[in-house]
Amino acid sequence: MKKIINDPADVVRESLEGLAVAFPDTLRVQLDPAVVSRADGPVTGKVALVSGGGSGHEPLHTGLVGLGMLDAAVPGPVFTSPTPDAVLAGVQAADGGAGVVLLVKNYTGDVLNFEVAAELAGAEGVPVRTVLIDDDVAVEDSTFTAGRRGIAGAVLVEKIAGAAAERGDGLDAVAEIATRVVRGVRSMGAALSGCTVPHSGEPSFTLAEDEIELGIGVHGEPGRRRMPLPPADALVAQLLDPVLDDLRAEAGDRVLLLVNGMGGTPLAELHLAARAAHGRLGERGLQVSRMLVGNYVTALEMQGMSLSVLRLDDEMLALWDAPVRTPALRWGA
Amino acid sequence: MKKIINDPADVVRESLEGLAVAFPDTLRVQLDPAVVSRADGPVTGKVALVSGGGSGHEPLHTGLVGLGMLDAAVPGPVFTSPTPDAVLAGVQAADGGAGVVLLVKNYTGDVLNFEVAAELAGAEGVPVRTVLIDDDVAVEDSTFTAGRRGIAGAVLVEKIAGAAAERGDGLDAVAEIATRVVRGVRSMGAALSGCTVPHSGEPSFTLAEDEIELGIGVHGEPGRRRMPLPPADALVAQLLDPVLDDLRAEAGDRVLLLVNGMGGTPLAELHLAARAAHGRLGERGLQVSRMLVGNYVTALEMQGMSLSVLRLDDEMLALWDAPVRTPALRWGA
Repeated sequence: MKKIINDPADVVRESLEGLAVAFPDTLRVQLDPAVVSRADGPVTGKVALVSGGGSGHEPLHTGLVGLGMLDAAVPGPVFTSPTPDAVLAGVQAADGGAGVVLLVKNYTGDVLNFEVAAELAGAEGVPVRTVLIDDDVAVEDSTFTAGRRGIAGAVLVEKIAGAAAERGDGLDAVAEIATRVVRGVRSMGAALSGCTVPHSGEPSFTLAEDEIELGIGVHGEPGRRRMPLPPADALVAQLLDPVLDDLRAEAGDRVLLLVNGMGGTPLAELHLAARAAHGRLGERGLQVSRMLVGNYVTALEMQGMSLSVLRLDDEMLALWDAPVRTPALRWGA
Repeated sequence: MKKIINDPADVVRESLEGLAVAFPDTLRVQLDPAVVSRADGPVTGKVALVSGGGSGHEPLHTGLVGLGMLDAAVPGPVFTSPTPDAVLAGVQAADGGAGVVLLVKNYTGDVLNFEVAAELAGAEGVPVRTVLIDDDVAVEDSTFTAGRRGIAGAVLVEKIAGAAAERGDGLDAVAEIATRVVRGVRSMGAALSGCTVPHSGEPSFTLAEDEIELGIGVHGEPGRRRMPLPPADALVAQLLDPVLDDLRAEAGDRVLLLVNGMGGTPLAELHLAARAAHGRLGERGLQVSRMLVGNYVTALEMQGMSLSVLRLDDEMLALWDAPVRTPALRWGA
């Protein structure tokens, strides 16, 4: 295991301390339990968005806290759900008196722990809505999941629902737009390499020299199949076609394309894949209205990528373009 | 070689085509010769900044084109200088009638080709100033260099000089502030792994399972020495102390710290290193006024990082904070 770390037991804490000193004007970081919240929060009278999950997917979610996006993120240990108490602390750090929307990626541990936290928050008088994110079309059930996994589509849900909350939408309206984004987004990923959880020290899986895993999860969960690495254009087609078929995308639809790196893939390769995906979407008659290309939902140092497609409506488009000011996503502010 | 590419001969072109479709409002991309320029350029009456060099270091330089930073970037083949004709095309795409500052990382090929381009531009009546960037303290002469190499400090030079040009400074003033940043910034990097140039297909070097190379160059040029991977805090000290000693940093100095990933290192590890570097700077009595943490000057998929420290004055600080709108660096616009 070759990582820039000290004691594997301290990775999450020390990384959060680094985030805190790097973004003192944007973020407030508390460590026990670990919660990252807006430096200017809680924002009185605004619906708050809280997400979280295992660490190791940075910048998700801790790097997506700030104006126009999340009010708080609750990072668990690497690839492990945060406890209900930690999620509750996130709710408390975020709550501005107008209720809280929990955005939860669909993994069994997260679903359970966020559910308990929602009950605890409700008992404290905080109105809570929960929206499950399950955008991964690769497999129906998986190692840590009943139903589909939540992967890179989370970024789009957080951005668009965050903008709705920022403009003053009420609790049910914010939950509704988040749900609409979940219904409109599909994703699929591929791994070119495994990744190593620090406290384990061993790769979660290994691939042969010319082999990839198609439909991989962001924790290295098995995908659809292993196959030789094809050229980029073919790989993109093999990820994108199931996404578009499942989405029932039709010619003329306006879409947002997210080309997401898994952490160890250089930006130039993601741009090359973006070219291919943009071309493929055009061939299918879709209009690519917005693109986002970069490492947003990662799996430690894994090489690989995922493609996400969101069918846009006018409101989603306006909310996507609205100002955002977080460590990883920033424009107009 | 495991990369998301098609034919290795097409990597740079296809990646630039992806950049073009991802940032249609920010960038204009021409392919023969390859030049990336501001979509709203050339900006009449503004001093233009042009940089470039071998590809494989993205987002440098192509992702740093836009308002408040570069007017054009000239990407050569992977790890290979662009030709003088290509650099001249970059100058022509950028020139708004107030002259052009060429920002050149100190590698023999780049220095020669930019020098010829400057002569060609001068013959066409375009006033040109050239500023060499040589921030790497690791070694004096290297595989591709007489004198010190230019590495991640380039980002700071481009940002600060770009802001000076954007506010309307004249040609000599922009060259002067760029030179001041070069004099005030020092860097050093370490590699945890090698990287593979697509058209070669073989790693440029290999390291043992527990080994790193201290003082590595961004093309995998040899550094100071190989050694076992130490804990992150010790690694940071071994990079930062030579930087600070060479800079003759003194207690009370205000500095900007850049923690730069080499492409294959996860963000969480960079944040962990940022914590250590921030702490070390504090121990030396320095005041960390600004930080930038992320993958900015990479070496394909290399795992590793570099640390850069810039001694700030009031003017540099104001120019750093000024609005910037590029694919990789964006705030206030």
